[in-house]
Amino acid sequence: MLAEIKGLNEECGIFGIWGHEEAATLTYYGLHSLQHRGQEGAGIVVGGNGTLQFHKGLGLVTEVFSRGELEKLTGMAAIGHVRYSTAGGGGYANVQPLLFRSQGGSLALAHNGNLVNADELRFRLEQQGSIFQTTSDTEVLAHLIKRSDEPILKERIKEALTHLRGAFAFLILTETEMYIALDPHGFRPLSLGRLGEAYVVASETCAFDVIGATYEREVEPGELIMINKQGVRSERFAPKVSRSICSMEYIYFARPDSNVDGINIHTARKNLGKQLAVEAPVAADVVTGVPDSSISVAIGYAEATGIPYELGLIKNRYVGRTFIQPSQALREQGVKMKLSPVRGVVAGKRVVMVDDSIVRGTTSKRIVRMLREAGATEVHVRISSPPITHPCFYGIDTSTKEELIAATHTVEEIRQLIEADSLAFLSQKGLLQAIGRPDDSPSCGQCLACFTGQYPTKIGGEYVGTFVQTSRCEY
Amino acid sequence: MLAEIKGLNEECGIFGIWGHEEAATLTYYGLHSLQHRGQEGAGIVVGGNGTLQFHKGLGLVTEVFSRGELEKLTGMAAIGHVRYSTAGGGGYANVQPLLFRSQGGSLALAHNGNLVNADELRFRLEQQGSIFQTTSDTEVLAHLIKRSDEPILKERIKEALTHLRGAFAFLILTETEMYIALDPHGFRPLSLGRLGEAYVVASETCAFDVIGATYEREVEPGELIMINKQGVRSERFAPKVSRSICSMEYIYFARPDSNVDGINIHTARKNLGKQLAVEAPVAADVVTGVPDSSISVAIGYAEATGIPYELGLIKNRYVGRTFIQPSQALREQGVKMKLSPVRGVVAGKRVVMVDDSIVRGTTSKRIVRMLREAGATEVHVRISSPPITHPCFYGIDTSTKEELIAATHTVEEIRQLIEADSLAFLSQKGLLQAIGRPDDSPSCGQCLACFTGQYPTKIGGEYVGTFVQTSRCEY
Amino acid sequence: MLAEIKGLNEECGIFGIWGHEEAATLTYYGLHSLQHRGQEGAGIVVGGNGTLQFHKGLGLVTEVFSRGELEKLTGMAAIGHVRYSTAGGGGYANVQPLLFRSQGGSLALAHNGNLVNADELRFRLEQQGSIFQTTSDTEVLAHLIKRSDEPILKERIKEALTHLRGAFAFLILTETEMYIALDPHGFRPLSLGRLGEAYVVASETCAFDVIGATYEREVEPGELIMINKQGVRSERFAPKVSRSICSMEYIYFARPDSNVDGINIHTARKNLGKQLAVEAPVAADVVTGVPDSSISVAIGYAEATGIPYELGLIKNRYVGRTFIQPSQALREQGVKMKLSPVRGVVAGKRVVMVDDSIVRGTTSKRIVRMLREAGATEVHVRISSPPITHPCFYGIDTSTKEELIAATHTVEEIRQLIEADSLAFLSQKGLLQAIGRPDDSPSCGQCLACFTGQYPTKIGGEYVGTFVQTSRCEY
Amino acid sequence: MLAEIKGLNEECGIFGIWGHEEAATLTYYGLHSLQHRGQEGAGIVVGGNGTLQFHKGLGLVTEVFSRGELEKLTGMAAIGHVRYSTAGGGGYANVQPLLFRSQGGSLALAHNGNLVNADELRFRLEQQGSIFQTTSDTEVLAHLIKRSDEPILKERIKEALTHLRGAFAFLILTETEMYIALDPHGFRPLSLGRLGEAYVVASETCAFDVIGATYEREVEPGELIMINKQGVRSERFAPKVSRSICSMEYIYFARPDSNVDGINIHTARKNLGKQLAVEAPVAADVVTGVPDSSISVAIGYAEATGIPYELGLIKNRYVGRTFIQPSQALREQGVKMKLSPVRGVVAGKRVVMVDDSIVRGTTSKRIVRMLREAGATEVHVRISSPPITHPCFYGIDTSTKEELIAATHTVEEIRQLIEADSLAFLSQKGLLQAIGRPDDSPSCGQCLACFTGQYPTKIGGEYVGTFVQTSRCEY
Repeated sequence: MLAEIKGLNEECGIFGIWGHEEAATLTYYGLHSLQHRGQEGAGIVVGGNGTLQFHKGLGLVTEVFSRGELEKLTGMAAIGHVRYSTAGGGGYANVQPLLFRSQGGSLALAHNGNLVNADELRFRLEQQGSIFQTTSDTEVLAHLIKRSDEPILKERIKEALTHLRGAFAFLILTETEMYIALDPHGFRPLSLGRLGEAYVVASETCAFDVIGATYEREVEPGELIMINKQGVRSERFAPKVSRSICSMEYIYFARPDSNVDGINIHTARKNLGKQLAVEAPVAADVVTGVPDSSISVAIGYAEATGIPYELGLIKNRYVGRTFIQPSQALREQGVKMKLSPVRGVVAGKRVVMVDDSIVRGTTSKRIVRMLREAGATEVHVRISSPPITHPCFYGIDTSTKEELIAATHTVEEIRQLIEADSLAFLSQKGLLQAIGRPDDSPSCGQCLACFTGQYPTKIGGEYVGTFVQTSRCEY
Repeated sequence: MLAEIKGLNEECGIFGIWGHEEAATLTYYGLHSLQHRGQEGAGIVVGGNGTLQFHKGLGLVTEVFSRGELEKLTGMAAIGHVRYSTAGGGGYANVQPLLFRSQGGSLALAHNGNLVNADELRFRLEQQGSIFQTTSDTEVLAHLIKRSDEPILKERIKEALTHLRGAFAFLILTETEMYIALDPHGFRPLSLGRLGEAYVVASETCAFDVIGATYEREVEPGELIMINKQGVRSERFAPKVSRSICSMEYIYFARPDSNVDGINIHTARKNLGKQLAVEAPVAADVVTGVPDSSISVAIGYAEATGIPYELGLIKNRYVGRTFIQPSQALREQGVKMKLSPVRGVVAGKRVVMVDDSIVRGTTSKRIVRMLREAGATEVHVRISSPPITHPCFYGIDTSTKEELIAATHTVEEIRQLIEADSLAFLSQKGLLQAIGRPDDSPSCGQCLACFTGQYPTKIGGEYVGTFVQTSRCEY
Repeated sequence: MLAEIKGLNEECGIFGIWGHEEAATLTYYGLHSLQHRGQEGAGIVVGGNGTLQFHKGLGLVTEVFSRGELEKLTGMAAIGHVRYSTAGGGGYANVQPLLFRSQGGSLALAHNGNLVNADELRFRLEQQGSIFQTTSDTEVLAHLIKRSDEPILKERIKEALTHLRGAFAFLILTETEMYIALDPHGFRPLSLGRLGEAYVVASETCAFDVIGATYEREVEPGELIMINKQGVRSERFAPKVSRSICSMEYIYFARPDSNVDGINIHTARKNLGKQLAVEAPVAADVVTGVPDSSISVAIGYAEATGIPYELGLIKNRYVGRTFIQPSQALREQGVKMKLSPVRGVVAGKRVVMVDDSIVRGTTSKRIVRMLREAGATEVHVRISSPPITHPCFYGIDTSTKEELIAATHTVEEIRQLIEADSLAFLSQKGLLQAIGRPDDSPSCGQCLACFTGQYPTKIGGEYVGTFVQTSRCEY
Repeated sequence: MLAEIKGLNEECGIFGIWGHEEAATLTYYGLHSLQHRGQEGAGIVVGGNGTLQFHKGLGLVTEVFSRGELEKLTGMAAIGHVRYSTAGGGGYANVQPLLFRSQGGSLALAHNGNLVNADELRFRLEQQGSIFQTTSDTEVLAHLIKRSDEPILKERIKEALTHLRGAFAFLILTETEMYIALDPHGFRPLSLGRLGEAYVVASETCAFDVIGATYEREVEPGELIMINKQGVRSERFAPKVSRSICSMEYIYFARPDSNVDGINIHTARKNLGKQLAVEAPVAADVVTGVPDSSISVAIGYAEATGIPYELGLIKNRYVGRTFIQPSQALREQGVKMKLSPVRGVVAGKRVVMVDDSIVRGTTSKRIVRMLREAGATEVHVRISSPPITHPCFYGIDTSTKEELIAATHTVEEIRQLIEADSLAFLSQKGLLQAIGRPDDSPSCGQCLACFTGQYPTKIGGEYVGTFVQTSRCEY
């Protein structure tokens, strides 16, 4: 499953609000609902009243913020960030939002995504004499804005954004304005809402539900939104192209209660399960899903096949950063970590085990074995995504193709490796069908690069794959 | 739901192991799997090598123990405890196991349950000159053992246990021995297992699965087990009576992957759902359960009625002790706390909402409202337990009957109060049937006191209810 | 110097106040001024308004108490304690005041001193069924009070005190009363003062100065003082004998600005220096004292001999509990710890180095070497106390005679061992003369047991020395 | 006294070592001995083995570094910093050394001093597109180095240093080299030493004594020293001018056991006292000094006048950052803070109170009152510096002349304000004479700007004083 590449994943969650006197507190609740997108660090910057104040730290939102800290953050606008990983070093320094103070005014940045030309831009900026504070891609934008020759900030930001390539959803807060920007392909989700008179923006709509806000619309790819006391203004920094939203948001990342680009995640996943049932039925006694992302899929699979859905695998909810991993010796003696099989449910049964993906295959193999040790007579693995055969450069950095088992093995070889009785992946076509899209969607589609190797953008560096030289996705 | 009386609930989890060189580490994993039984404090005492060492603290198991702390706890025997609540004050001091050192030898105690005559015993002991360290009931046993006139420890413990009335599962560790005791009615679950040559004991069998141990049998009501280097010895400190295991273990407390008194919890809960479907069907579009305890019930209800099961309510996983509760003003503006409705799933639908119980009714009302605000056209509440009409003295202290809505209102009145379109509770008979029991079970039944007012033991103090003066349960 | 036996020293500081609405805060400042008597732990208990509240912790007063903690401690009476050492284990649990809660009322205890029959009393109490919470001697008194047959608390305390042998200054606080008691020989200092209408009591008078209180009188040996809303009442729990106040209070422990039994410490120490100059003059260029206790002595020696006083040794002020001690390798390469010689002052000079005492001799040797390495041409050591030849059982536990270099070596042998050019100790007679006493002092004298082996009380256990079987000191 | 302007004082301490395998640990001890120069923050960067690692934090050296942290800092070169104040905000971010990483190599900076043209340089750099991480002056140098057009680092540093005006002692560490630079006037002390084969550099020589290193020479004003594996190389970045070392180093800052520019501080201060005795004798009974800086002065005054030196004022050693300041109400009731009078010493006596300086006069007044309340019949104040009449721009920022009592009042007016019986300041000539200088000193003199208004450098900004437009000091 995708969770196994934790540490490589650079997914994050962002939230912003303009025009509410409890901006910081609402951002706290918004970030809290986005906690699944990043558990390593959290931060909030407030502004809008002429000065920027911030608090950030390593850990969960509830660990980073005490009531005292929150109460100090007064202001009617705020942006916040939860961070998945501090890989790349820097620890505290890399926790966002990043805040840049200068005599000409301050600026805070929160970023979800991954730039493919960050190293190249950074090299050029350092050559020109800039000093970077962090190892974060995000800082590149601050330097580009600072060095832009445009006279007003909005134009400087627009000019700076044109240099960036890759996936980015940015929130920018100054003493007097908030900016919202989404990359021209719209790789990452970013939704707009209203809470009374206030404007809100978030990576997922679950953040709106939790604070009682109402959904308005998606931020469009290539759009730059500016909010200040005069109101809201939308402009474009890049021409309109079709959207390439990350398929993994539907398969793995987003919370079941969120709508991403207008589509409910739980429903989409249930449909993935139903589609899997059509594509790869099997005779079995129980269906079980690997928590949390595959629960909905398993329910859909069960509903479509008539095989009962059961809790065959339990996730221990209290595994946090401070959990002491069992030694190799203890693991071999059978000490489980965060997933346990339910013996009373699977013993003597033919089990369908639904998971979201197979990356290296080691986790799948471990779960299959666990189910057999708990008495399952057969284990049939059903994966709610196509085989991942290519690295992602837009947020999930598997570094090299070699680490992806599906890049170098057939389905049958993988089945043998993970010791399953049968194995099936969802087809690419099935994936697109199951997710579906409302007819009035402003976007045409999804990024399937990790399944197809067809990347919506140029990729710099030494990776040699099958590039799509146009910014238009073509499935 | 029962979770709403957090702070009053004195449920806990205990774990012990004898004869393994990584006793402390295995206890850590065991406690970790019992974390749902208590999140307020945790502790481990190791012994068996001639000296007792301990570490304990407030917070989750993963917060209390670092690798360094764990490595200091060397010894081939250990007992551990997770604590639900530190209500009653004392904080750190009340975190268990309690350790009592004296020139004649040391003794550590871990306790799950609630004594009904603790105050009375304590008063008598203080009159005789004893000084108590904690406000915990558990300490009473230590003083009774210390003051017993019996010459050897095993006899002192047996003599001391006869003074206790109520629910108790005790683990006792000395420099050279471990003792396991369960009260004569067996209110609390306590299972025995083996891990190679080592003996293990735990509140729930999920703790065995997590460390790779195999289940052996239940500890019997009134049994005292002694383990030392000579082996295991079982005796009785009270005559055999029929078991009165707490029904709430099945309905709410235990983890779905545990077997309690030989019965799998997930399966039992699914059966509760199927029984509810038989007793109280309704025309609806979706079934949803209040996480976590009612998920299995809802799946059973859905399976039996054919109405699709959906994730209509999402629990935020990261609400811990440090979560900052929203102010009243923000709650009124719609800020959610730990539960969110899934608009995409319930909007425009007739929803069956399954929950485990109704205590005060305020939580149920809030959830019903939340579902309606998310667009549900009808909300039908189905409860997987009978109405709670009487206080519990064996672990859930609701203090007075007045706080229990079902003690003073009819089902129809409750329905109106919680603003549901329909409301049904499971019948007592349905509850017993759904849980069922294997024919070779050593115990006849369950404690239903909170539904019936028929208490298996004498209750001291001023409460005037319908007492059953015999220690034999009669349903 | 005496500081070298840190960890064995059980000296402490106590402070109490009755009748001031900022009792806890004033106790904080009082304890703060007594910090030199104990840096390992601190605690405050407030009462007098019907309930006892406490806060305590490991570390300095300023580390243990934050403003928030202090503000929670409301009440018009308080007692506090600073602890020198937590040797004997127990850590946090042993930090005082100890608080004992029972259904019949609570009781807090703060103790300065050392009981010589604590083990014996503890053994008897445990035999009778008492359970001890701590490894502290102090707890013995609580159990004796609890078990006393007397009907009222004051009588119970008096009866309990008669069982104790050794050095003790006790403060006891209940919900409604404060008690003050000093052992029959008055080994430890304990002074009474007034702050407006409030009563204060402290180990040293510097605590009065710091809060602006005025000194009233010494607590008398064998006196029990009770303070409550009706006023103050003095009784005796033991007959009047002559005082045996610890000589080390004058030589080493007390702060220079305190008066102990009416005698100013700085003045007493300066007189020790003058007396040393009379007894052991030497031709030299500079006089320097080992900080802090010997500064005053060195000034006196310089004044009497006409040799200039200089800062030849500097103590690093920031060596706290968290200081990382240099490795043996680094020490050998010359890394200093808390004392540094001042090269510019001692180079090329004949130096008189004044210290308070020689216990094992290792520290003296290190300082002599340090001075020579810094260029001193001669080092003459002058000690402001007689040779320590016998262990102390009243607060400084050197355990065995074997560890005391003066018990087994002549002055000339010690001189050679510490590599000094000359060495002189103050005479016993000189010590008593230098300290002097006002004519109206209620006490005759001082305890000189560590110099003479003549102990004012019976000593239990296996130590065989020259006991004085009378409770009257005879020099 | 000068301590009263804590928070405005930007004095710091720096330490560096090259060529020792325990570089970080020795830097720890070195910084520890410089702790009196800064208690607000500390940091160490190690390098020399191809990569820079750092640890820093708010608080004392012993609070910031645990053994674990120290052991992680491996490398044969290190620089460290203790910081007096984090005024100017930024907290943790402003703690030094500052570390700047870039693709072309990393660079760490530790700085003692104050630049008078920092704001101007910063403004220019920000205009050119640089982004600053901190509010610290020190960062300016990093940006100047980064933007220099010179091809090699040594030349870039030299070029950058020429832009700086004011007081600076810099240590710079890269992966392969260490640089040491002192401003052209040598305002701050900076000494070189050897420890075996290793090179050491420190703000004060006490840091050499504590690690067993030997003093070599002063760093010369305008000198840039480069150390790498090839050896040591000294160059100049500015022409040789006469030194203007801060007089306050002798009067107040430095530790008594340090030599500053070859002169022992204790001896210099004793001479200040002797000179004061010549300039301003008085009939009195005791001489006492305000700890710590005036102890040596008072001893000198006593020696010269024959009046006995006594400990008339005691400083509480345990007043740290976490000390809870007494409320105004408690202060008025007599609660003392960090200084207490010794009643037994001053009561009934005519007291000479020696202090280092008078800034606002409020502290002097408080001490005079304290002594009178303790019974002093007369209080004669003697100050070991001339009146401070002008602000300092090189490290002590009193901001405006208005805050300096001596800028607007005569000596007699000040005497009345502080309620002394007599008051005398040391003359400028007396100050210079007392400090003296060895004949072979490479520097001509001291900065007296705060007494004279004659500043050795141009001062930017709006302050209008009497500027000395030459870089040569002229007294």
